[in-house]
Amino acid sequence: MNELPENHPLSDGRTTHAPLVRALRGDRPERLPVWFMRQAGRSLPEYREIRKSIGMLEACLEPEVATEITLQPIRRHGVDAAVFFSDIVVPLLLAGVDVDLVAGRGPVFAHPVRTAEDVARCRREFGPDRLREAIEPVRAAVSRTVEELGSTPLIGFAGAPFTLAAYLVEGAPSKDHLRARSLMHSDPETWRELLDWTAELSDVFLTAQVEAGASAVQLFDSWAGSLGVADYRDHVAPASRRALQTVQSMRLPGGGAPLPTIHFAVGSGHLLEEVATLGTSAHGIDWRTPLDEASARFGDRFPLQGNLDPAYLDAPAEVLEAHLDDVVRRGRRAPGHVLNLGHGVPPSADPDVLTRIVELAHER
Amino acid sequence: MNELPENHPLSDGRTTHAPLVRALRGDRPERLPVWFMRQAGRSLPEYREIRKSIGMLEACLEPEVATEITLQPIRRHGVDAAVFFSDIVVPLLLAGVDVDLVAGRGPVFAHPVRTAEDVARCRREFGPDRLREAIEPVRAAVSRTVEELGSTPLIGFAGAPFTLAAYLVEGAPSKDHLRARSLMHSDPETWRELLDWTAELSDVFLTAQVEAGASAVQLFDSWAGSLGVADYRDHVAPASRRALQTVQSMRLPGGGAPLPTIHFAVGSGHLLEEVATLGTSAHGIDWRTPLDEASARFGDRFPLQGNLDPAYLDAPAEVLEAHLDDVVRRGRRAPGHVLNLGHGVPPSADPDVLTRIVELAHER
Repeated sequence: MNELPENHPLSDGRTTHAPLVRALRGDRPERLPVWFMRQAGRSLPEYREIRKSIGMLEACLEPEVATEITLQPIRRHGVDAAVFFSDIVVPLLLAGVDVDLVAGRGPVFAHPVRTAEDVARCRREFGPDRLREAIEPVRAAVSRTVEELGSTPLIGFAGAPFTLAAYLVEGAPSKDHLRARSLMHSDPETWRELLDWTAELSDVFLTAQVEAGASAVQLFDSWAGSLGVADYRDHVAPASRRALQTVQSMRLPGGGAPLPTIHFAVGSGHLLEEVATLGTSAHGIDWRTPLDEASARFGDRFPLQGNLDPAYLDAPAEVLEAHLDDVVRRGRRAPGHVLNLGHGVPPSADPDVLTRIVELAHER
Repeated sequence: MNELPENHPLSDGRTTHAPLVRALRGDRPERLPVWFMRQAGRSLPEYREIRKSIGMLEACLEPEVATEITLQPIRRHGVDAAVFFSDIVVPLLLAGVDVDLVAGRGPVFAHPVRTAEDVARCRREFGPDRLREAIEPVRAAVSRTVEELGSTPLIGFAGAPFTLAAYLVEGAPSKDHLRARSLMHSDPETWRELLDWTAELSDVFLTAQVEAGASAVQLFDSWAGSLGVADYRDHVAPASRRALQTVQSMRLPGGGAPLPTIHFAVGSGHLLEEVATLGTSAHGIDWRTPLDEASARFGDRFPLQGNLDPAYLDAPAEVLEAHLDDVVRRGRRAPGHVLNLGHGVPPSADPDVLTRIVELAHER
């Protein structure tokens, strides 16, 4: 058990009764809380304006800029939580890995990590200590954001170890992560070493955000859906557990409640029984699995987050509203519900539609 | 009921007792039949040699070349079936749609199909009659291939209406097919018109292959996995049924058995109960769902095809063999089993490993 220090920003209880925090703890606050994955950045004109003069990764590492981008959707949409503006490769970058974000493609690595030697070199040169030494800009941005947010909670965020590993092995985005999954079966020991390393980096990245004032965290596994149940259970879940280990042991000062943690994996409808074992307080559900069905499969044990289908964002207002009503109705089965999309905000989304969804949610 | 003509190549019963045909009919032949999705092309050096002097779509439409490529994996691996060398965009191309295959990317359309007007124009200008008029090269290639194959069955093949529509709406490959799924919800009537049209083209394409001598067909839905159950059932399954309608009504001369049909959708573990309603004789299962689990969910009613994980192709021989044993063991639960990969042959596959898999399957 790690108690956060007395001078921690949340020790004044500023977000303890926020609808988001209450819902993630399994409560039913008077207002249905809503936020949107990828709400910071992408579709907002005020974000695009900022990005005219600064690159994506630079924006993540410049505290003043990251704070501003994180706050934009709060001002515009009135969502119930901010999510820290970052990218899943930021911990790798800070640890020293040579990675760039290529527009229209995604993360591209100068040196794909494919052999036992590659993994050993990563562990030696880009370890968690190096990340800890370089992480100050992230702490500074979180502190500044939390100060501005007041009683609105900030959600910290990290990519899951498998997703980081899949990018590293492939060297770039790929469809089925075949190289990564091949390494898993050809050399399971090297695979384990690789995931131990990415899990340590995710752990440090999440922990720093909580120490600086995040009220909850989300572990985001973009690619777990490419795995069968046995592979996920044997070769991936232990690393996700490891990534969450420190934040799950943290308590607010004075014997406070544990910090809410959310797990979200895209396309993982077949893995629900496995992600249930990760120990997070809540689960994000993608657009493919109805919330009542997900809750039933979880034995109605977890608050759920989700899962408006982004494909409805362009639909006529009454069609979108009927879809929202359906999601809210199904979400009532779970012990708590945070309304969200079932995937990130598409770059093409109309910001006014997102604002309208927040209004509709708050009227429910 | 459509009886095939007396002079149909299969009227001599040449493939009736082939292990593939028997397994797809729910029998347990003395030899476990095996073939590989995408076995024709891609990883074979003799295929790459041919492709040095001819483009992909030209190769599909040049009967002599398509026949040679279709036969190559029979000669090299000794698989139990040939699969017709083609591409899912071929019916669109033959119907007049302006489409190109861009290396490293996939099909790219000159005019994405996104509005009611776009769909009306497609139906008017690129209808099934135009495909029927242009399909002779496909018939010729199938006839020639069937002649060469003798008692080895040829599997005909077409892309499913949803997959064709997803490409057409996006105009190119995409990750979540968001534009296509948005059209589905924004304008369901236009969506239905679009899928009616692609279903008719798939139907004509499959029917031509059967009339020319294919012993079975596979409908391949690359992108159905992006859909939730309700969307698949309401907006997609009826079109897949329509695409299979004619071939499912066909019988060999003299009151012969119906032609075996296979449905395969990638990432569709959550849709098994829905694809069960399509009326196909057998189902392909991707690498994520163990065959015994799939069979249980089907009520053990269908022969299954699959589902070696392509991620094992690079693994040490004993690891691959243990995986194969596991797949074969689980496949015993189904009323019939055709061994295959759980996805297409990766371009990086070692052809000798595929040959070894055939040998191992035939020893089982």
